[in-house]
Amino acid sequence: MLGVVGDSGAGKSTLSDGVAGLLGAERVTDVCLDDYHAYDRKQRLELGITPLHPACNHLDLMAQHMELLREGRRVFKPVYDHSTGTLGPPEIVAPRAVVIAHGLHGFFTPELRRVWDVSVYLDPDPELRIAWKIQRDTAKRGYMPRQVREELERRRSDSEQFIAPQRERADIVVSFYPPGSYGVTQDNAKLNVRITLRHPIPLPDLEEALVVASGNSNGYVRMTRGTTGADVLEIQGTIPDAVICAIEKRMWDHMSAARHLPANDLGIFSDGPERKRSNSLLVTQLVLTYYLVKASALARKQEELAGVGGGR
Amino acid sequence: MLGVVGDSGAGKSTLSDGVAGLLGAERVTDVCLDDYHAYDRKQRLELGITPLHPACNHLDLMAQHMELLREGRRVFKPVYDHSTGTLGPPEIVAPRAVVIAHGLHGFFTPELRRVWDVSVYLDPDPELRIAWKIQRDTAKRGYMPRQVREELERRRSDSEQFIAPQRERADIVVSFYPPGSYGVTQDNAKLNVRITLRHPIPLPDLEEALVVASGNSNGYVRMTRGTTGADVLEIQGTIPDAVICAIEKRMWDHMSAARHLPANDLGIFSDGPERKRSNSLLVTQLVLTYYLVKASALARKQEELAGVGGGR
Repeated sequence: MLGVVGDSGAGKSTLSDGVAGLLGAERVTDVCLDDYHAYDRKQRLELGITPLHPACNHLDLMAQHMELLREGRRVFKPVYDHSTGTLGPPEIVAPRAVVIAHGLHGFFTPELRRVWDVSVYLDPDPELRIAWKIQRDTAKRGYMPRQVREELERRRSDSEQFIAPQRERADIVVSFYPPGSYGVTQDNAKLNVRITLRHPIPLPDLEEALVVASGNSNGYVRMTRGTTGADVLEIQGTIPDAVICAIEKRMWDHMSAARHLPANDLGIFSDGPERKRSNSLLVTQLVLTYYLVKASALARKQEELAGVGGGR
Repeated sequence: MLGVVGDSGAGKSTLSDGVAGLLGAERVTDVCLDDYHAYDRKQRLELGITPLHPACNHLDLMAQHMELLREGRRVFKPVYDHSTGTLGPPEIVAPRAVVIAHGLHGFFTPELRRVWDVSVYLDPDPELRIAWKIQRDTAKRGYMPRQVREELERRRSDSEQFIAPQRERADIVVSFYPPGSYGVTQDNAKLNVRITLRHPIPLPDLEEALVVASGNSNGYVRMTRGTTGADVLEIQGTIPDAVICAIEKRMWDHMSAARHLPANDLGIFSDGPERKRSNSLLVTQLVLTYYLVKASALARKQEELAGVGGGR
C-alpha cells in the first residue's frame, strides 16, 4: 500500500504512474482519492467549500476502502470525474499485489495513516507547483489560467491548514526544485530533487546502490545522514544518463524480490503537450519502488513470523 | 442485525416494515439486498440468468457491507431500482440501532450467515407466494400476470437450488398458510402461521407471553416443544382482537429493554390496493421483535462480559 499525498498540481499522478510503470501495470491497482469527494464542482461552489477541506470528502469511507483493499478484498467505490467535475457511476475495484493511492487527504486521519506500507508527501517548490497546476488544469480540465490563479487564491488558507501539515506524517517527502535561480522558466526535465527519508527501513543498501553507483564524489547524488531520524537524499537534475544507467542496475540488484521489467517510460512526464524525460524523476521513482519492494518483503516476513500464512 | 430471507413474493418487505414499525422507524436501518444485483434487468435477459442465481449478485460486497454496518460503520452501497430494473445512483447508509436486511441470498455464504443476530426465512405456502408475487409485480413493477407466471417458471430451478436450501440456515422459519382447504381464494387477513424456532434464546418468557396470555386451551396459539431442537409455534388466523390485546401487553412486559411505541400499523399489510390487518401477521411481527430485542440484550451482555465497552 503506497500512499501519495500532496496539494493539487504537486505531481501525484506523474509519480504514481511512474512507480506503477516500474512495478508493471498488471501488478498495480491505482486509486485516486479525489473519488471520495462528497460534493461535485457545482455543489462546492454553492457551499463555498474547497475540495481541500476535509468536510468536502468522505474520509471515513476512504479509510474503510483502503483497509479493505489492504485485506485483499474488493470494494464498491465512488468515482469523481475531473473533466466534468461531477460524481459518475461507481466502480468495483479489486486489489492487485500493489495498491497506489494518491490524493489530498491520504494522511489526514489516524485510520488513513495506519494503512500505508510507504507514505510519500510531494512538496515541490511552490512556484513550480503553481506552474504545473496551471499547465494541467488548462490542458485537461478546461480552465483559463486566470481561473486557476483565482482558485489557488481561494484555496490558500485550506491548503495551509489541511494539506501542508500532512507533510510531517509521511515516511518520505519529495521536493522538486529548480537549480540555482532558474525561477519558473526552469526546464522541468532538469529539476533537482530533495528526498527526505524517515521510513524505518534501513538505508545501507539504498546508499550503496545510489551514492556508490553514481561515483561517490561527483555530487550528482548525495546522502546526508540526519541526527534526528531524517536522512536527506539530494539528486541533481543534471545527472548524466551514464550515471543513471549504473544506478538503475544497482537498484534492481537490491530489489531481487521484484521482477525487473523493461520500463521504457522511466522518468517520463508530460510537459504541456510534450513528453519529456527527467533523470531526477527517474531516480525518485526508483527510490519509491525500492521502499515499496522492501516494505512488502518486510510485511511478508512479519506475517510469517506472526504465523499468518502467505503474504498479501 | 435481522436478516430476512425468502423467495421473491414471500412477504419479506411486509414483515420487515412491520418489525421496523414496532421498533420505531427512527431506530431502524432498512437494507434491501437486491441492491447487490450484479446485472440490471436488460443484462440478465441477455445473459439468460435469473436474479436467484448467486453469480447474479455481488455476495462478497453484500457480506462486507453487512459486517461494516454491524461494526457501526457507514457504507457506500449500490442501489437497484425495482420499478425500472436498473442500477441507480449509489447511496451512503449509516447504521441505526437495528439493521433489518431482506433479500434472496442473505444466508447463502458463511460470511453472510455469521452477521445476523436473528435470521428469519419466509416460507409461505407455495400457491400463496405465487398469488402474492403476481399481485405485487403487476401493481408495482409493471408486469402482466402472464409474464409473472412465465418468469416464475424460468426461476423454478434456481429457486429450488439456491434459495430454498437457505431455509435450513435460519434461526426462525415463518410459514403462512391458508386454513383448511381455502386454496388461493383465501382471505389474506385470516391466514394461519407456523413459526419454527431454532434460535438459541430460551423460550419460557415467549411461551408465557404468547400461550398463557392467549388463554392456554383455546388453541389460537399453540407451542410444540420439539425433541430435535426445533420448537413450533402455531397461530390461527382467526385469533380474536381481544386475545391479541392480551398477548401484545404481555409481550411488551417481556421486552422491557425496548421502548413500547404506539404502533398503529401493527399487522397491517397491502392486499392489492387495500390495506388490511392480519392478527397472525401481528403476532409474527411481535415474535420477531421479541427475538431481536432479546438477541441484542444478549449481545450487549456478552460484550460487557468480554470487557468491550458499550453495546451497539
